[in-house]
Amino acid sequence: MTSDQSKVVDGTCRAAWSAWGSLADAGTRAGVLEALAAGLDEIREEVLRVASEESALTPAELAPEFARMTGTLRQFAAVAREGSWIGAMIDHASPEPVGAFGGVVGPAHDVRRVLVPLGPVSVFGASNFPLAYGACGGDTASALAAGCPVIVKEHPAHPRTGRLIVGAAREALRGAGHSEDLIALVENADPRDLSPATALVGHPMVRAVGFTGSQRAGLEIARLARERAEPIPAYCEMGSCNPVVVTREAAVARGEAIGRQVAESILLRHGQQCTCPGLLILPPGCGAVVEALAARLAAADPRAMLAPWVRDGYLHRLAECRKARGVETVVYGREGSGQRQAGTCLLRVGAADFAAQPVLHEEVFGPSVLVVELGGMSELRTLPLRGALVGSLYGGVADEGWDLARNRLASMCGRVVFEGVPTGVRVAGAMVHGGPFPATNRPESTACGPMALARWCRPVCLQNAPKEALPAELRDGSWHGTRVVDGRVVPGAG
Amino acid sequence: MTSDQSKVVDGTCRAAWSAWGSLADAGTRAGVLEALAAGLDEIREEVLRVASEESALTPAELAPEFARMTGTLRQFAAVAREGSWIGAMIDHASPEPVGAFGGVVGPAHDVRRVLVPLGPVSVFGASNFPLAYGACGGDTASALAAGCPVIVKEHPAHPRTGRLIVGAAREALRGAGHSEDLIALVENADPRDLSPATALVGHPMVRAVGFTGSQRAGLEIARLARERAEPIPAYCEMGSCNPVVVTREAAVARGEAIGRQVAESILLRHGQQCTCPGLLILPPGCGAVVEALAARLAAADPRAMLAPWVRDGYLHRLAECRKARGVETVVYGREGSGQRQAGTCLLRVGAADFAAQPVLHEEVFGPSVLVVELGGMSELRTLPLRGALVGSLYGGVADEGWDLARNRLASMCGRVVFEGVPTGVRVAGAMVHGGPFPATNRPESTACGPMALARWCRPVCLQNAPKEALPAELRDGSWHGTRVVDGRVVPGAG
Repeated sequence: MTSDQSKVVDGTCRAAWSAWGSLADAGTRAGVLEALAAGLDEIREEVLRVASEESALTPAELAPEFARMTGTLRQFAAVAREGSWIGAMIDHASPEPVGAFGGVVGPAHDVRRVLVPLGPVSVFGASNFPLAYGACGGDTASALAAGCPVIVKEHPAHPRTGRLIVGAAREALRGAGHSEDLIALVENADPRDLSPATALVGHPMVRAVGFTGSQRAGLEIARLARERAEPIPAYCEMGSCNPVVVTREAAVARGEAIGRQVAESILLRHGQQCTCPGLLILPPGCGAVVEALAARLAAADPRAMLAPWVRDGYLHRLAECRKARGVETVVYGREGSGQRQAGTCLLRVGAADFAAQPVLHEEVFGPSVLVVELGGMSELRTLPLRGALVGSLYGGVADEGWDLARNRLASMCGRVVFEGVPTGVRVAGAMVHGGPFPATNRPESTACGPMALARWCRPVCLQNAPKEALPAELRDGSWHGTRVVDGRVVPGAG
Repeated sequence: MTSDQSKVVDGTCRAAWSAWGSLADAGTRAGVLEALAAGLDEIREEVLRVASEESALTPAELAPEFARMTGTLRQFAAVAREGSWIGAMIDHASPEPVGAFGGVVGPAHDVRRVLVPLGPVSVFGASNFPLAYGACGGDTASALAAGCPVIVKEHPAHPRTGRLIVGAAREALRGAGHSEDLIALVENADPRDLSPATALVGHPMVRAVGFTGSQRAGLEIARLARERAEPIPAYCEMGSCNPVVVTREAAVARGEAIGRQVAESILLRHGQQCTCPGLLILPPGCGAVVEALAARLAAADPRAMLAPWVRDGYLHRLAECRKARGVETVVYGREGSGQRQAGTCLLRVGAADFAAQPVLHEEVFGPSVLVVELGGMSELRTLPLRGALVGSLYGGVADEGWDLARNRLASMCGRVVFEGVPTGVRVAGAMVHGGPFPATNRPESTACGPMALARWCRPVCLQNAPKEALPAELRDGSWHGTRVVDGRVVPGAG
């Protein structure tokens, strides 16, 4: 990084820090998010065109993603305005037992707790969702809703898309009377240049990081964040080898339909979704599933992937896995022409060979799946499965091994899908888009849904504070959001 | 560690893992906690005697701490039974906008979220609270309430106390028909022997760590937890240099009373509390505060500290600080006789010398305080203050610099106390006993109060699950705890 580039990063972070105070009010946060959504709506066609050119995703794929981006911005505006997210709790001073939990333990001070924003957040968006997890995606929306300005680290796979979005966002903010420095972008067009990332994560005015990408990059970002003089949290979503389990009974009854469903899930965005099925785990007697899946994958055309290095990484991982002991290549689709094109792949291995070879336990980012053949469902108990974002279970509750599969998936996934594919994430309060390591480094969090803003806050307790020192949500009397007062939930009016 | 000791650790962890399933039911969790509290009540006198012998804390200091320990166990029993802590959320499948946040973003699957326990937790208790933050203290209570068995790492400062408590706890569990392996202790009588800590944090069946102690040990525990093949969370409370700010107006009006209050706060447990005032930050004109504080500290007798190495650490840090440029020793109390005795200390330094010397920014664990003299309250803006558990502010809202002090303290502390001393932690929902680094490594958490159990859980989302796959709190129909259904809070009956 040249000293000029360093100055740009520093100036950007300082501007975000200065703008921070303007987000103190919840109404302002909501207004900012709504202004962004409206501003982006105005350039929808241009965004779709540029994003499609850069990502090789089709307009049909990007149009719903655009709606998801603006829908998420508006949802977080509603969350900010509704106000309960701030987690207000009041325990009045009382020498008597109060609330649901009986007994005062310790001195009966008046204590009041609320979430406060950490400060400017640096967002490292995803390659595979240039809109919904890009410059104005879920991390940006949740950070702004929590009261944190955002500094986007440009993604080298779609620099024009990011610049277009952030430019429009800043213009929309100016137009609505907000500080444009509530969102900014630091350029990083060269994927080999790591200095913008290093400078951002190390800057004292960056107070948290949201990252979506590879495990290697995520672990490095987390390390940089941790080794600062003052460590900051880095929430890293790092890829996932999502398992799909099918019971024998389900396979016998509707194996072909299941195989087709899984195939379509894999083919969405040519396998380039964090929720793409990675493992298909089958007891004996599931041939119909594999046949239908193989037929559909074999018939799929090769497609351009998100970036040349994504294609290279995919082919490299495929080659590694195909060389592993006991792995049979069932489908290896045409690679196509062009620097970014690649085809589908279906591999098959027995449970023992799978268990013994860690190279098979890691994500293959692309349109491939590894079928793991069990000797029986009980082998699920010890099969080495690593933490994943999501797992699917096809089968009925009375099927052999269904309970075991349900419990095993719940123990290692952030989300368990029943009778459905892992792709397709609803943005809702109950959503968990996260999961045990190595899917993320913070399994207690979600990157999707209103709870995502908790990542950008910490609680503060004010003890025996004069009324003037209390924010609105901690004052006695009515407040529009839900809060907990003396151990009892007091629902808001909103 | 000998291979025999390794086997003991391994056996203990395996037994905890096996016992884990017995905590699935909330009523069982509550029963376990109540059995522990009742069992400890039966050996109260013996616990007080042994803990006093080991820690040199007085029975008058330990009696309320005993009540805090059993009160916390019973409070967490109530929390477990009440049930809302599990954070249940339900979003029904609906093609229509539902709930408070309008608009369905993404596919409208039925999604339901709940917290699940991580598994066995290893608790590294505090030297300074052998009961309330010892073997059956807040970390143990919150872990059991969350559904996690506990493996206590013995504290070398009070091994007999820990063995007595865990022995009684296991007997109480047996007596009440629970598995005794829900709590166990790994011995570590020699403070130089780090192998029990290493073995516990590295054991695959330990799924989280709660640590209270020094920064050096805490960072090492966190590193070990992170560098496992499968990283686990380590929640480390690592000491804190807690600031007390007094406005000139408050000092003029009631400086002597404030000085006496701060002195008594320091003298509690001879300065060996994590919430002990460490810095007294004063604008010009606060002489009365310092005079009263100095008089009380100078009159205090030396006392035995918690352990010889605690005394040595205290004297070492005092010597470092007294050598720093511009530091004046106002009080240096008699050291006393005996290997563990030490006296009080009051040091004074100007803001510029303080700012320039990092040796002054770290905790001195013991009965000492550093007065930092400001040229004016505005110097608070840039004074280098590190993350702390708690800060205090004496003064009225109209006083010069009061707003600045309030905001500065809120930006760097987990808790801000108004017109009072930082010692004295209420165990309540709104309590935050935590704070920015280096006070803790997880400022989003609290080690005290019902919210402490969130540390031992992660959320799981079940999508389109059949009723049979849902725990009680996620089924449609009535449930006794509060939950969020389609974006609206539904208060429980409890």
